[in-house]
Parts: sequence; C-alpha cells; structure tokens
Amino acid sequence: MSRLIRDLAGGSAEMLDAFDDASLVKHALAFEAALAEAEAVEGLLSPDEAARIAIACAQLPLDTETLAVEAAHAGTLAIPLVRHLRRALGDEDLAKKLHMGATSQDVADTALMLQAKSGSVLITRELYRLQTALATLAERMAGTPMLGRTLLQGALPIAFGLKVVNWLAGIDDAGVRFTHECEHALRLQFGGVVGTRGGLNGKGAAVAAHMAEKLDLASPLLPWHAWRTGIAGLAAALGIVTGAAAKIARDIALLSQNEIAEVFEPHQKGRGGSSALAHKHNPTGCQIVLSAAARTPGLVSTMLSTLPQEQERGLGGWQAEAPVLADLFILTHGALLALAPVIEGLEVDTGRMARNLAAANVGADIGESEMLVWSALKARS
Amino acid sequence: MSRLIRDLAGGSAEMLDAFDDASLVKHALAFEAALAEAEAVEGLLSPDEAARIAIACAQLPLDTETLAVEAAHAGTLAIPLVRHLRRALGDEDLAKKLHMGATSQDVADTALMLQAKSGSVLITRELYRLQTALATLAERMAGTPMLGRTLLQGALPIAFGLKVVNWLAGIDDAGVRFTHECEHALRLQFGGVVGTRGGLNGKGAAVAAHMAEKLDLASPLLPWHAWRTGIAGLAAALGIVTGAAAKIARDIALLSQNEIAEVFEPHQKGRGGSSALAHKHNPTGCQIVLSAAARTPGLVSTMLSTLPQEQERGLGGWQAEAPVLADLFILTHGALLALAPVIEGLEVDTGRMARNLAAANVGADIGESEMLVWSALKARS
Amino acid sequence: MSRLIRDLAGGSAEMLDAFDDASLVKHALAFEAALAEAEAVEGLLSPDEAARIAIACAQLPLDTETLAVEAAHAGTLAIPLVRHLRRALGDEDLAKKLHMGATSQDVADTALMLQAKSGSVLITRELYRLQTALATLAERMAGTPMLGRTLLQGALPIAFGLKVVNWLAGIDDAGVRFTHECEHALRLQFGGVVGTRGGLNGKGAAVAAHMAEKLDLASPLLPWHAWRTGIAGLAAALGIVTGAAAKIARDIALLSQNEIAEVFEPHQKGRGGSSALAHKHNPTGCQIVLSAAARTPGLVSTMLSTLPQEQERGLGGWQAEAPVLADLFILTHGALLALAPVIEGLEVDTGRMARNLAAANVGADIGESEMLVWSALKARS
Amino acid sequence: MSRLIRDLAGGSAEMLDAFDDASLVKHALAFEAALAEAEAVEGLLSPDEAARIAIACAQLPLDTETLAVEAAHAGTLAIPLVRHLRRALGDEDLAKKLHMGATSQDVADTALMLQAKSGSVLITRELYRLQTALATLAERMAGTPMLGRTLLQGALPIAFGLKVVNWLAGIDDAGVRFTHECEHALRLQFGGVVGTRGGLNGKGAAVAAHMAEKLDLASPLLPWHAWRTGIAGLAAALGIVTGAAAKIARDIALLSQNEIAEVFEPHQKGRGGSSALAHKHNPTGCQIVLSAAARTPGLVSTMLSTLPQEQERGLGGWQAEAPVLADLFILTHGALLALAPVIEGLEVDTGRMARNLAAANVGADIGESEMLVWSALKARS
Repeated sequence: MSRLIRDLAGGSAEMLDAFDDASLVKHALAFEAALAEAEAVEGLLSPDEAARIAIACAQLPLDTETLAVEAAHAGTLAIPLVRHLRRALGDEDLAKKLHMGATSQDVADTALMLQAKSGSVLITRELYRLQTALATLAERMAGTPMLGRTLLQGALPIAFGLKVVNWLAGIDDAGVRFTHECEHALRLQFGGVVGTRGGLNGKGAAVAAHMAEKLDLASPLLPWHAWRTGIAGLAAALGIVTGAAAKIARDIALLSQNEIAEVFEPHQKGRGGSSALAHKHNPTGCQIVLSAAARTPGLVSTMLSTLPQEQERGLGGWQAEAPVLADLFILTHGALLALAPVIEGLEVDTGRMARNLAAANVGADIGESEMLVWSALKARS
Repeated sequence: MSRLIRDLAGGSAEMLDAFDDASLVKHALAFEAALAEAEAVEGLLSPDEAARIAIACAQLPLDTETLAVEAAHAGTLAIPLVRHLRRALGDEDLAKKLHMGATSQDVADTALMLQAKSGSVLITRELYRLQTALATLAERMAGTPMLGRTLLQGALPIAFGLKVVNWLAGIDDAGVRFTHECEHALRLQFGGVVGTRGGLNGKGAAVAAHMAEKLDLASPLLPWHAWRTGIAGLAAALGIVTGAAAKIARDIALLSQNEIAEVFEPHQKGRGGSSALAHKHNPTGCQIVLSAAARTPGLVSTMLSTLPQEQERGLGGWQAEAPVLADLFILTHGALLALAPVIEGLEVDTGRMARNLAAANVGADIGESEMLVWSALKARS
Repeated sequence: MSRLIRDLAGGSAEMLDAFDDASLVKHALAFEAALAEAEAVEGLLSPDEAARIAIACAQLPLDTETLAVEAAHAGTLAIPLVRHLRRALGDEDLAKKLHMGATSQDVADTALMLQAKSGSVLITRELYRLQTALATLAERMAGTPMLGRTLLQGALPIAFGLKVVNWLAGIDDAGVRFTHECEHALRLQFGGVVGTRGGLNGKGAAVAAHMAEKLDLASPLLPWHAWRTGIAGLAAALGIVTGAAAKIARDIALLSQNEIAEVFEPHQKGRGGSSALAHKHNPTGCQIVLSAAARTPGLVSTMLSTLPQEQERGLGGWQAEAPVLADLFILTHGALLALAPVIEGLEVDTGRMARNLAAANVGADIGESEMLVWSALKARS
Repeated sequence: MSRLIRDLAGGSAEMLDAFDDASLVKHALAFEAALAEAEAVEGLLSPDEAARIAIACAQLPLDTETLAVEAAHAGTLAIPLVRHLRRALGDEDLAKKLHMGATSQDVADTALMLQAKSGSVLITRELYRLQTALATLAERMAGTPMLGRTLLQGALPIAFGLKVVNWLAGIDDAGVRFTHECEHALRLQFGGVVGTRGGLNGKGAAVAAHMAEKLDLASPLLPWHAWRTGIAGLAAALGIVTGAAAKIARDIALLSQNEIAEVFEPHQKGRGGSSALAHKHNPTGCQIVLSAAARTPGLVSTMLSTLPQEQERGLGGWQAEAPVLADLFILTHGALLALAPVIEGLEVDTGRMARNLAAANVGADIGESEMLVWSALKARS
C-alpha cells in the first residue's frame, strides 16, 4: 500500500523486504525445490529430476504483477506458480512430479514461516539493541532521584534508574516470550491436500524431515493446516513486545511535557518539528511506538478469532492470517527501531528532576530503588 | 505491501489507487491550493498570489519515495511537502503565506477524507450492484422451498427467497448506516495548530467554508483534531457492511458443501481450483469475503481505542488511523467485489433443495415466507 | 459476577438492574403474554385463553437460581420457562397454545431489546446531564486563555472554552448516533423457528405488529434472527459514546498533573485517596471512564465478529451477544455517571492556566476561540 | 451479573467462586496477614503484633455489599478494607503498622493472582480431562476412514483419528503455553506506593520473599505495577486455549449437520432441544464453546491495549484488567467443561463416514494417517 503511510508508521525497509512479493515468491520456490530434493533423497524422484526442478525454481522468470492477478483469480499463489514452473520444465512427465504430495497451503504456510523467520531476526536484533541501551541507562541513573507518579499524580521519590529497569523488565519479559514462540512456531508446513502426507509411498515423514532441515525450519510431527495455535502465540508475543515498548514511549512522552521537562528525545535535525511552529520539539519516536501499539491489539485479536478453522483446511480463516502477521512484524519492528535511538540518546535533565521532586514536597527517600536496580541488572547478566 | 497478499485478500486496483501515495499527495496539494484560493476570496492573499500557489501545487515534481523518507523522518507528510512547495515558489514572501493558518493534521485529515470520499463512491456502487443482484434473486426464489436450518441442524421449511431477502435486509441496513456515516464524517479539517483558526484576521470560518465547498467536503463548525467520533463511526459502518456480506458468504459456503449441494458459486475458469485436486470447486468468492470479515472487527476496535486522544491534537492515536481506515475501505470493497458476482451468477439447485427438504421429513409448509419476501421487496422499492 | 469488581468499574445499580435476571425473566414473560394477547386479537386464541396466559405470566413463581441451571442445561432460557408456564396453566390444551408461533430466540432477542431499551433511557438521561454540564462550562470558559497542547507539547494559546466545546462536540456526535441506532435496533423479534412466522394461519405479520405495539418496540418487516446489523450498530454507538467520554477524562487527568495543575476533579470526601499517602488527590472519576474505554473496543469487535451467523439461526454467535451488549451498556453508563459530576464540579484554576501560558512564551492570541465556542453553542441550541 | 446469562455462557460455579467477592476479600486479607507475618520475621513487627493482625484478618466481619459501595467510592478496595481492619484492631499504634510498606495495587494485584491461581488449577484439570478423552478417541479411530474436507468441500480420505489427533495437538500446544504463562505470571505484587519497597528499613526484598512463600506465589525481583506483560501473556494463553477448543467444536458442529451426520454430541435428556421442535438435537456443547471463542479475542485485545500504562502506576489501564482476566478464566473454563463430555461421549457413525466417503468418489487411501496418529500419540506419552 501507500509507502507514505507505511513509512510514517515506522515501517522499515528491511522488514518490508522480508514480507514483500519477491521474498514470498522466493520462499515459495525454495519450498518446491526443497520438496524435490527431499523426495530424491527418499527415492521418489531421481537426483537428476530433482536437479532439473531446482534449476527451474532458480531460474523461473516471474512478473510479480501478473502473478498477483493470477493468484487472486485462482484463490491461491501456488496454483499459478506451479503452472509456470511446470511450463518452464518443458517435460510433461517431470511436470507431474513437481509439487508432488504438497498442497497450496503447504507452500503458503511454509513461505510465511520463512518470512517470519527473517522478520524474527530483525526483531531480535533490535530487541537486543534496545535492551543494551536500557541496561546502560539504568546503570547510569541507578541512584538519580526523581518524583514517582501514580494515577498521573505525584506520589513519592524513586530513582530514575528504577523506572528504567522496570522498562527493561517489560522488554526482557516480552523478548523471552517472543523467542520462545518463534522457536515453536517457525516450522515447516507439509501435509498434502488433507494433511495425510499421502501419495509418497509411506515416506512423508522422512520427506518432511529433510525439507525442514534444508529450509532450516522446525519439523513438526503433524501438519498444522487447521490448528493454528503456533502462529496465534507468535502474534500475541509480537503484540506484547510492542505494548512493552509503548509503555516506555508513553512514560517518555509524559516526562517530556513542557511543565515536567525531565527527559527528551534526542534532538535530530528535521525531526519532531511542526509545519507551523518553529519552537516545537515533538516526541516523534514515541509517537511511532504509541501508534504501533494502538494497532497491534486489534491485529492479535484477529489472529485469535480465526483459530476455529473448519475441518482439514478452513475457509477464510487462514487466508486472513498472512497480511495480519506481516503487519504485526512490521509494526513491532518499526516500534523498536523508533524507540532504540530514543533510549540511546535520551536527554535527561537530572536538575529538573530534582527541582520537580523538591516542589512536590514528599521527601527524598528513594527506598530500595538502587538495590532493586542493581539486583535486577545482576540477575539478567 | 505485498501485492500478492493484497490481491489474494481481494484488494481492488481502484480502491488501492484511492488510497495510494499519488492520491494522498494529490489531495494534500489540493488542500494547499484550496486554502490559498479561499484566503484570496477573503482578502488574505492577492488573487495573483493564490494563482501562483495553485500553479506550484499543480506542477510540483515529486518523487514519492524520497517524500516518504522525508515524511517519516519529520513525523508528518506536511512538513516536507510544504518545504518543497515553498522552494518551488521561489519567492520568500509568498512562501511564508503558503499553508497560512494550517497545521500538518489539517492536511493529513483532509487528504484522508478526500481518499475516503473516493472510496465511498466505490463502495456505494458495489453495494448497489449487490443489492440489485440480491433483490433479483429474492424475487426469483420467493416461493422456492428448502430446508431451514438453525444451530446448524435441519429445522423447518422456508422459501429460499426468504433467506435471500434476509441477506438483503442486512446489506440494506449496513448500506444506510454507511451512507449516513459518510455524509457526516467526510468533512474538511481546518483549524490550525491548536484548532483556533488563528492568524487569519477573524476570517477562519469563512476560509473554512470556501475550502469545504472547493474540495466538495462538508464544512464542520469546529475542527475535529482530537474528537474523532466521525471517523470512528465510519470505521464501524464499514465493519458492519463487511460483516453483513460475510453472513451471506458463510451461508453460501455451507450450502455448497458436497452433502448439501444446494447452491454453488458460478463456475469461472481457473477459479476455486486446487493445486493438487482437479475435482475441487472451492467457494473462492466466499473465502475472500469471510477472510475480510475476519480482519475488520479488530480494525474497528483500533479506531475506537484511539478515541481518547490527548488535548488539542494527540500523540500516536490519530497517526494510527489512516492506515487502519484505508484497510477497512480496501477489505470492504474487496468483499463486495467478490460477493456481487457470486450472487449474480449463483447456481441454485432447486431440485436438490426439494430432495434435502423431503429427506428431513419436516413437511413442506413454508409459512408466510412468500408474503415476507414480497412485502420486504415492496417496502424498499 | 463480583460486585466489588463490577462496582469498582463504575457499574450503576440502575443499569445492573436493567440487565439482571429479574428483568430478563420479566421481559421474557412479557413476551409470552403479549404474544397471547396479540394472537387473541387475531382470533388465534380466545380472549379468555389469552387472559389465563397473562395471569400465568404475571403470577409465575420462579426461583432464578434453579431457572439458571435449567436454562444452562437446555441451552436456552425459553425451554424451561415455557415448561414452567405450561405446568402453571394446568390445562394441557391451553399449554399447547402458549408460545405458539414463537421460538427461543424470539424470546431471548425481544427480552434483550427490552433490557436495552431500559438501558438506553438511563444512558440518554446521563448524556443529557453531561451535555448540560459541558455547555455550561463552555459558556463560562468561552474566553479563558490557556496553553493549547499538541503531541503532548505546549503549542499556542486557546480558550479553555474551546477545549470544552470540542469535548461537547464529541459527546453530541456520539449521542446523536446512539439515539439513531436505538431507534433502529430496539425492535421486536418474532419469526418462529425459521423466521417464516408459520403456524399462525397467515396472521403472523399482524400478530407481530400487535406485539410490538404492546411491548413498545419497533416492528420490523422481517425477523432478524441471523442478520444482526442492528445490534452491531448499537454496540458500536455505545463504544463511541464511551470513547468520547474518555477523551474528556484523559484531558482532565493530564491537566490535573501536579506540574500543570489547571483543573481538578471536585474534592469528594473519601474519594481519590490512597491507601498509603494522605496527600494524594487521584482523578478517580477519570479513572473509571478511562478504564471503561479500555474495555469497550474489544467488546465492540466481538459484536462485529459474530455478524456472519449461520443460516436461519446461528450457532454460538448470537448466544455470545447478550452478555457483551450488557457489558457495553454497563460500562458506558458507568463512564457517564462518573464523568458528569466531574464536569459539574470541575475545579478550574484560571490563574494557573494564565501562568502556564505565560511560561510557555507563545503569546496570548487565542485566535477565533471565542467565536468558535459561541457559534458551536448556538448551533446546538 | 445475570446468573442466567452467565450460566448460559457456560460459567461454572467453581470458577465463578474463584473470582467472586468472597474470594477476592479472602485473598486481600491473606495479603495483609502475610505481610504482617513477613514483617515480623524481619523484625519490623513483633510476633505478637503480627499475630493480632492475623487474627483481625481472620475474624473481620464484612458485608460485601457495603464494602463494594465503599470501594467504588474510594476508587480501590484496599482503602475501605484497611480502614475496617484498623478499626477492628482497636489499637491506634498497631493500626498504623498494618499494611506497612504496601499500596492498594499490591493488594489488588496479589489478590487477582491468587484468584488466577485457583482458576488455573480448574483449567489445568479440565485440560487434562479433555486431553485424555481426545487421546482415547484418537486411538480408537486411528484407522477409521472418512472424507477429509478443505475449504468446506470434500477433498480426499483421512482417518478420523488423524482429525482427532490434530484437535489434540492444538489443545496440547495451548495447554503448554498456558502452563508456562501461569508459572511466569502468578507472582506476588509488593512494591509500595511507587515500587521502591520503601519504609521497610532495607528489608523489602526479604519481606517480599517471605510473603511469596507464605502465599505460594512466585517472587519477582521487581514489582510489576506498570509493566503488565505477565498477565497479558496469561490472557493471550487463555484466549488460545479457548480458540483451540472452538476449532474442535466447529468441526463437530459441521459434522453433525443432518446431511453429513457423521458424529453427534452425546444425547443428554433435556439438552439441545428446541422450545418449538421436538425432533431437534442441537449441538449445545459446541454452542457454548463457540460462543466463548467469539468473546475471548476481544478480551485479549483489551489486555494488550492496556500495556502502555503511565509511570509508576497507571490510570485506568490496570483497573480494567481484573474483570477482563476473570471473564477469560470463566469463558475458557466454561468452554472446556462443555467440550470434555462431548468428546468423552461422542457418538461416531463410522458407517455414515464410509458412505459419505464412498459418495465423494475420491478413493479410500488415507495416506499416512494412521502412522501420523500413532507417532503423535507416542510422542506425547
């Protein structure tokens, strides 16, 4: 869709690439090549046949625009893609052996998992960057007093480091869940039309295992055409990462209010300005994070609402998942990309913190703030 | 994003165009030109100045890719766009008068409303087509007996026409709400930085009225920067249209099950096939509608969750709305486009209906079915 | 459920009563009595038979706990209720005529609409109260200068009255939609098992008309067992009312922050305190509103997601609606009840507004703020 | 709320008890007693003082109705509860030491986690029952041929056992996630007003550890007042359990359609009937599950949307969580309770399966169905 809208929403080129047409087609072709190779290992194809299929997959000239129209008409990408491949093979016997034992959803789901895998690397990298920045900031601010605020009212003193280490705790927690769900969900789909792995001479499980290894995906015992708990869990994990990031963004935006003025996003030339006011310094990074977090909960609810899919492969439910999962990856990565430099360069006015705290007249005892900071940092190291 | 994914989800070229970058920039430039013209009418600019701004808007050479990067960096489209326009004017005094009295969100919201207006025409057209097809089908089937089913169990006889006229009632209801919300929501945004229409020598209301007329949008008494009930209502109306369409799609898919086999999507060469099975005739049109309806509720919830926006113009909330509203238009249009031909060409096996009904052994009394069909059709004519 | 949780969430006794068991059973019995009376008017029952049914409905002794267990077992309230009524009639012939032409969902939907009707009166009353309070406040503050804030940063001066009249515009808009959706959605359900109004000797439409009049509900041409756009629209309207209220609550909570301190919820003995800090003055009214608005979007999405219901009467979808619609009424009413007194008694520190504005160093020109306030107030009078 | 509505939605007495007022107050009092005891261990109170507090907690006479009104007025349960306890102690000095170091949210969150812990036991028990029933059914049907269906169209043969083992895989997957999230999320909340564990002479961490042990909850390094990823993850896990159950219910409801008639819910006298039709056998158990699954996605989205909570303790966000989490436990338990007996007593018509399969004319080769069933069952044993 609109690049303007998408970029304003923080979409990164890398993540958009991971989920674009070229990557989708590339992964779909990798599926077909891996299938042929695996079938050759199991003696269902000759090595030469597998090699010729691999070459066709590698060399297939494709016009994505045309393919999109054909796929929309057919109702699935695999139908025109397999047709093009068969035509390219130019050998009717071999053409019949292409895609042998597979169904459209095998291709679609596996390609989606390969896209998600690329996406998960990007998110993990950005999570690590954010975690590092937060840990560094927490260390630096471990004992810096500021006013703690509850229910949007001044309450009692805390250390700024305690706030930061709480931010980090949320991100750590969300990161662990994300990693865990990725390990679980990023798996091969291979079951054939109704998930029986039929037509493969009893070698379906072996073929699946070879394919998974070749594609570097987990190899599930069963196809998961119609039980979608894995990607539902992954979707929820992405939503929670974005939510944890948005908690930080909300705090920073609140602390940046002119009357509070304790922290600021780093100044970047040309960022956070106003089309009408020269003096404005808008928290644009936080805006992107909050905007992403406004959108992820509804997307997660979609992924949960499609769980009750019909019979062996459903109608409408799984077809809704790919664009939603892609949006979740794009928004989550955009949020992390926007937030990491805000933390790395956060401008902290400890003097103003001290003055706001003094004005609140609630003493200066930060309780066990520092101990909490150090013990939390130590526990994660 | 991915055209493949987007097209598989039923996205139409027309609707995608309505919400693409070119349309967004075109509308944003139309805003600036209309503003200048309106200000000239009110004597805030000379006619010549307005004309020169209009020319700059009409002739501005723009590279959307670059603009997207600049907008993402700035946090808003208006900032780089106005900068490019000012540079193009090549007259520092006039440059200052460009965008006078406006703020970034004025441009963004008005452009979004102009996009939505284009979108609403497409949806209204497709609603009309679907309504016509449903009314025709209801007439034709007014007295055709079939088994009525409740809680997915055979119950008592109905006329097929009664089922169809109920489908139509849902679409009519959703259509009326959609029209109503469009009339209300498709309005100019013009308030300046904080919605006071300042800096215009007391002529803000008059300028707004001229602009609205020029852009063919409603002219609200107040700017609506931070009270977003209008577009929330519009979003909900779109979600309800898609839901009403999906009720029809669900019924058709259920009636197309092999063991029931009472209606079928019209056969279209190359559609609804399987990459592995020649005999399959999948309800691909219904799939697109059901898939769209799986996604719209979460999008509507996002539009409602962002209603509590901060102060004069919020942070993160309104910036989340444009892509979500665009998705709602795209999905709703895609659903209607997929469904209309299904109804127009629906293959009805009245013999099978009769046999299934007889097998259920629940008599043949269709109650007041026919009277209900004719009175409902009459009431809407 | 838990009264503590429910009351903390702002649930009012009145609205909880409107949706409690006693009201549900009362409305279900009113349905059966109205049905008998209408059938007597149309000669399907004798006046005496209708009278005896009416008496049975009026006098039926019911233990709600037992009824709940029976209804849960049966899967619907109507089954045990009709059984108890039939037993109470003590006349097998008459017993057969009870509930004649009706189905469980007719009772359930009509009872829900009668509950919603009671609820809509409460909400309309509270909307009016809030609107009055907002209009009064807007008048009083029409020209009071304060700092306008955008993206959580100080921007330019506005009148406080302009902010208030924007709050009012959101509530007005949401209120009009709510009224409109109520007029449309609050209608009789009467169609019999499969919506054909069978078994009534061709008098189904007349019976429906009499019932609707007797129950003071709108009389739809068609039963709406499986096209649920009306209550989906009503649900969305409730969600938008709560969202519009929460926009006000968010603003007030932000303006009440100690460092801004421009407005405060009225002090109420024992409200907004802290279990640990004596000095706290928490915005408890705003908390209830914001908490309600956090929950309504998800509930609305549920009502939209259940639109694609199966065939003549669905499985699982409509059964999910009643508790969700009830929650929407309870939360929305709770939000309005919490917000109205906050506005009525809002403590405004205009001196602090002036000082904060001066500190922002952005001049004192409030543009056309006052004119906007008065023209908006005038337009609604 | 309405018991009728609640029970129809499958709410179990056990789970409703786990989240009722009595349990909430009991857990809140347990918190205060555990706090006193822990403080006595650390020498902050004398053993006698702790004992007197424990006795007051154990013996406090409470009228829940009154307490609910007071809590709603105060904005939190802890305020009136602590007041009543202090009065009951009848010793001003000791009264001051009650609740020492704690804040309202410490009590509310810990009580919620204790409720969730009770709830998690009930859900785990029912998951185990369902898993056992599914494994048994899968074994029994490992090689029973039936028609596999994709996109609601007949496709190729499968074993019924393969369908069942896929159902089980979804439940297993959801169950593992649920257990994992429980272990993580069910933890003590103890941080005091701003999470610094102040006022405890440096012994806050030790006090927290003792309390967690006493209350049998995990002991987190940091308070989690404003980073809510743990309960968001728990909420998502509950939603996924319900979704996995609903996949099964949808399949059974589809297979129970009269024209397919391959499986049926076990007949239970008085269940699944119709208020108007004697012959109906509605899938009432499936209805409850599908209805629950219609509601859970919206509730999960609420729990994710409230993640960005303000500062040290937020306004509106966390207060929205308790009723939503309770609903998720109630709906999920209700779904499992409704589904388990359906599986345990499922009536399977293998003859009809064979006839439907033969009629589809797609051969009888069930591929590797049986091998998949046994290897999946073996892997989980």
